[in-house]
Amino acid sequence: MSIPRHQSVPPLQTDFLSASDAARLVVRTGITQVLRQIADAIEADFGRWPDFDKSARTAAHSASGVIELMPVSDAQDYAFKYVNGHPHNPQLGLPTVMAFGALADVATGMPRFVSELTLTTALRTAATSAMAARHLARADSHSMALIGNGSQSEFQALAFMELLGLRELRLFDIDPAASQKLLRNLQPFLAQFEASASIAASVAEAVRGADIVTTITADKTHATIVHSHLLEAGMHLNAVGGDCPGKTELEAAVLEQAQVFVEYEPQTRIEGELQQMPAAFAVTELWRVLQKQAPGRSSAEQITLFDSVGFALEDYSALRTMHGLARRAGLLSQIELVPSLTDPKDLFAMLRHAQSAQLIPFSARKSA
Amino acid sequence: MSIPRHQSVPPLQTDFLSASDAARLVVRTGITQVLRQIADAIEADFGRWPDFDKSARTAAHSASGVIELMPVSDAQDYAFKYVNGHPHNPQLGLPTVMAFGALADVATGMPRFVSELTLTTALRTAATSAMAARHLARADSHSMALIGNGSQSEFQALAFMELLGLRELRLFDIDPAASQKLLRNLQPFLAQFEASASIAASVAEAVRGADIVTTITADKTHATIVHSHLLEAGMHLNAVGGDCPGKTELEAAVLEQAQVFVEYEPQTRIEGELQQMPAAFAVTELWRVLQKQAPGRSSAEQITLFDSVGFALEDYSALRTMHGLARRAGLLSQIELVPSLTDPKDLFAMLRHAQSAQLIPFSARKSA
Repeated sequence: MSIPRHQSVPPLQTDFLSASDAARLVVRTGITQVLRQIADAIEADFGRWPDFDKSARTAAHSASGVIELMPVSDAQDYAFKYVNGHPHNPQLGLPTVMAFGALADVATGMPRFVSELTLTTALRTAATSAMAARHLARADSHSMALIGNGSQSEFQALAFMELLGLRELRLFDIDPAASQKLLRNLQPFLAQFEASASIAASVAEAVRGADIVTTITADKTHATIVHSHLLEAGMHLNAVGGDCPGKTELEAAVLEQAQVFVEYEPQTRIEGELQQMPAAFAVTELWRVLQKQAPGRSSAEQITLFDSVGFALEDYSALRTMHGLARRAGLLSQIELVPSLTDPKDLFAMLRHAQSAQLIPFSARKSA
Repeated sequence: MSIPRHQSVPPLQTDFLSASDAARLVVRTGITQVLRQIADAIEADFGRWPDFDKSARTAAHSASGVIELMPVSDAQDYAFKYVNGHPHNPQLGLPTVMAFGALADVATGMPRFVSELTLTTALRTAATSAMAARHLARADSHSMALIGNGSQSEFQALAFMELLGLRELRLFDIDPAASQKLLRNLQPFLAQFEASASIAASVAEAVRGADIVTTITADKTHATIVHSHLLEAGMHLNAVGGDCPGKTELEAAVLEQAQVFVEYEPQTRIEGELQQMPAAFAVTELWRVLQKQAPGRSSAEQITLFDSVGFALEDYSALRTMHGLARRAGLLSQIELVPSLTDPKDLFAMLRHAQSAQLIPFSARKSA
């Protein structure tokens, strides 16, 4: 062999974005700017939907929650997300949802970016909602009811103020402290947007007269947060909380009265509000609206409903956006996830190198 | 709220084992000792097979290779592996197979360990082979033919010397340099085990009279490395290389003459040597042998065949073993993969904390 055996090679590094650095990145870039960039990336990627190798996520259910893997790829990039959903986690001091994931090169399989995705998931979920609403809500939409004021609610509020120009928010949660937390967190942004937010006494009060209704409650049960008698002509419903089997937020009659749009139909049939409806119930995949293959909203009176469950492609778009932003902001670190081999066919050599670095006779150790 | 809003909480850390530290760990512990511990863990975990939530891996195929996700869980631990297979990677200076993965708590979804799995996959694959052979090969086995002398071959040779007591190795590869690399890497261990290894001129020469035949070639094609006329009574075949659709190493007649054992039948039907056989071709899942629900080898003359494709449970066992070993050896580092929140229902607060740490007015940034 012409390659010296003990030559050291530069380590193959994988970029890493930690949870703290992701927060720093969002603050430095400006959260509304990050939401806009992720929404634009998701819109562009949904617009080339047939390019992607898609599959329903794998889910491991237990008594306490669910752990999922969500892969997707095009000809260049492979992305996956690990994400859990454990409603009782806050009692243990842990977030309900935690996530991380990676981007890899399809051509070689090399993982080039590993990232926190807890904050990023909140950003991409809100960005997806706002992107969908850009195509489905009335262009003159001004107000939004925000039902469920947990961890995701600030992101939804900001995305809709930034991307839809909403200026009036009506907040409701069965836990008044959650609404107060949301209101407090939104305060500086309300000033910036010259917008108003108020806490409603009931779902009905929040929904009445709202142009957009966002539901983002956390209970893992078949709840009926929005009844059909609350619907008004021209409303757009952004149903985010019903996102796994056994977890829904809308009365079935709401879906019957609306034109329903989904991310990836095979997944939404199992996980979305759609799980309540017969298999033949008609829905439209959102990408077909973006590609002008199907109509979005057809009149100012129509009721539109985005039955959002979260799809791997949104994480692909968000991972690529955050990677680019973090690189430019100098917020990436590096981890050595894969070995650097002088001869890639000689994996065993990495043990020789480790051994020579430690001056330990390699085969001298006695086995049991 | 009783919790001060800006109180900083200790970061939620995830243990991390880098590729270099995994190599250090194996050298410090002794590779044969690591192989033994992983084999014992895999045997114990296969022995409680019904405890696990199993699924076939997801695979994203491209012209250049495949990227897979392999999840598995029991009531306590969730494990997954990311792994690629790109046969032309060595021409680009990259390993054919690169892998990493994680262990998480099923009760909360918290990822508690992220690890390199390139080296670990080589270890667990060899440990699985040797563990299966402990139950399927003749107890008096002394010699092994090792066909295919790439990155996995050293690990197979060491696992079988350590765990089966083999003392004679016959090496063959169509690339003589690969066999010479293997022989060189094995040299110190041959002395330790008082064993011999020689390079054979052909597959037939390597196989003739061998007690165990291990095939571990890399070509992603339907190759016939071992023809049925080479079989001898009492042989155990350890078929490792045929592990994805379109990639096999054995003539179909070899399977017909052997009693075939597999890891997880639904996956092996698609990925293993078994893909050549009709759906009704009978096989035995290895865990049933361990639980004494099915016979293993039934006579000294029987030909046994382990059609190994690699199953997620082996990574679960290996991840847990390496995590324990690395902790005791002080070789773990920490990464901040998930955010630490004062109030776990207030994800947005992490942006406030990042902002206050940077003294940047949070909402002052102009959006586009």
